[in-house]
Amino acid sequence: MSLEIIPVKIDKEIEQNDDITELLLSSTSKPEIKDNDILIITQKIISKQEGRTVQLSTIMPSLLATGIGSEYGKDPRVIQKILDESKRIVRLNNGVIISETIQGFVCANAGVDESNVKQGHVTLLPKDANASAQKLRADIKKKTGKNVVVIISETFGRPFRIGQTNCAIGLSGISAISNYIGAKDTFGRILHVTEIAIVDELCSASELVMGKSLNTPIAIIRNYKFNDSLSSINDLLRSKYEDLFR
Amino acid sequence: MSLEIIPVKIDKEIEQNDDITELLLSSTSKPEIKDNDILIITQKIISKQEGRTVQLSTIMPSLLATGIGSEYGKDPRVIQKILDESKRIVRLNNGVIISETIQGFVCANAGVDESNVKQGHVTLLPKDANASAQKLRADIKKKTGKNVVVIISETFGRPFRIGQTNCAIGLSGISAISNYIGAKDTFGRILHVTEIAIVDELCSASELVMGKSLNTPIAIIRNYKFNDSLSSINDLLRSKYEDLFR
Repeated sequence: MSLEIIPVKIDKEIEQNDDITELLLSSTSKPEIKDNDILIITQKIISKQEGRTVQLSTIMPSLLATGIGSEYGKDPRVIQKILDESKRIVRLNNGVIISETIQGFVCANAGVDESNVKQGHVTLLPKDANASAQKLRADIKKKTGKNVVVIISETFGRPFRIGQTNCAIGLSGISAISNYIGAKDTFGRILHVTEIAIVDELCSASELVMGKSLNTPIAIIRNYKFNDSLSSINDLLRSKYEDLFR
Repeated sequence: MSLEIIPVKIDKEIEQNDDITELLLSSTSKPEIKDNDILIITQKIISKQEGRTVQLSTIMPSLLATGIGSEYGKDPRVIQKILDESKRIVRLNNGVIISETIQGFVCANAGVDESNVKQGHVTLLPKDANASAQKLRADIKKKTGKNVVVIISETFGRPFRIGQTNCAIGLSGISAISNYIGAKDTFGRILHVTEIAIVDELCSASELVMGKSLNTPIAIIRNYKFNDSLSSINDLLRSKYEDLFR
């Protein structure tokens, strides 16, 4: 059966404590929510809804942030927030900061972002996007009676390959990994090592209808057969000690 | 408009010099090919069609391959093919070989794969999957009159994140990157750094209908608005010198 990826327009700039379920249900794109729909929601609106927006003028940069900002011609207040959101810096080169965030993601600028936010402000990643996904899923169940999956997405760069792709930073109601270990290939031989990060693939698929400036922060993926589980985003995070590239 | 991802079944085990266009058109899933369809085709059938299958009994492993095989309990003949397909080893640890392939991909085992192939054989990546994609696209145009995009996909692991995702290794008729540089965000501010690797996202989306053992080596993605270009897979390959993780 064909998979369908449906864009959902939200015509309002999201503010703190907005009701995302209500905005979804009242969208002009009138999406009908069905059981087993997979809702992919961009991090940006979750962060805004949760008040994870910071006014740069309120930030007092440390000497380290000032130094890094001076070295690379960057706003030291933004650098300060990147440091605040990071456990540690993994790479720092030519003004590119790759760090491990408090949540455990390895990405550029710790998810601190100046795009699609009011001038003089930055957005931060949700503190716990997995909890955000769980909460939103429960709210959708309450208001519609439908069992859906919620995945919160963010665009990350990659080593070795140019360009960003959309990845999962929080999820509820779906296994993060589709595990083919023990399954058989078309020759009847056991597949040993194939674990597909399907929630990342679902996020990548959703980006194709979202774009970056289109007021389309939500996509619905329909007809995808998934395994329900108590999986969390942590299932996707490779530890520093098992990582050949840190 | 919703995106549609349509699985295409091929009920025949692909052999060297099979006509993939004919097999596509005679598929029992009866896909109708339309202008601007994006065809994602898994590397495995391209490799088989191009004769990139090797019988292990014909391989004489070098002392290096024998040594690596002995150290990690692996078949030295498979190790030999991995070395043959690699420019250099990027990481070697606990039996995991990450190398840069002759084509420029950084991945595990240089794409040498024992799954979904006859016992005692391995498949190799296509020598030039970009050329394979161009050739197949021209053939589809000739036999159907339709202008389609062809992307050849392979599953790669990632640093930092557990699980593999499907990526592009060859493409024809589409820009590899969707470039938002110079575009404006919803606040009218210029976006500076957003380059999305959309061909990788399209491959990830296709994997959701392909699975690993389902005789579904092709997917059609319909209703995706893309930029045509003379783009090649090389647009996605970050050089060693610009890569912070090699």
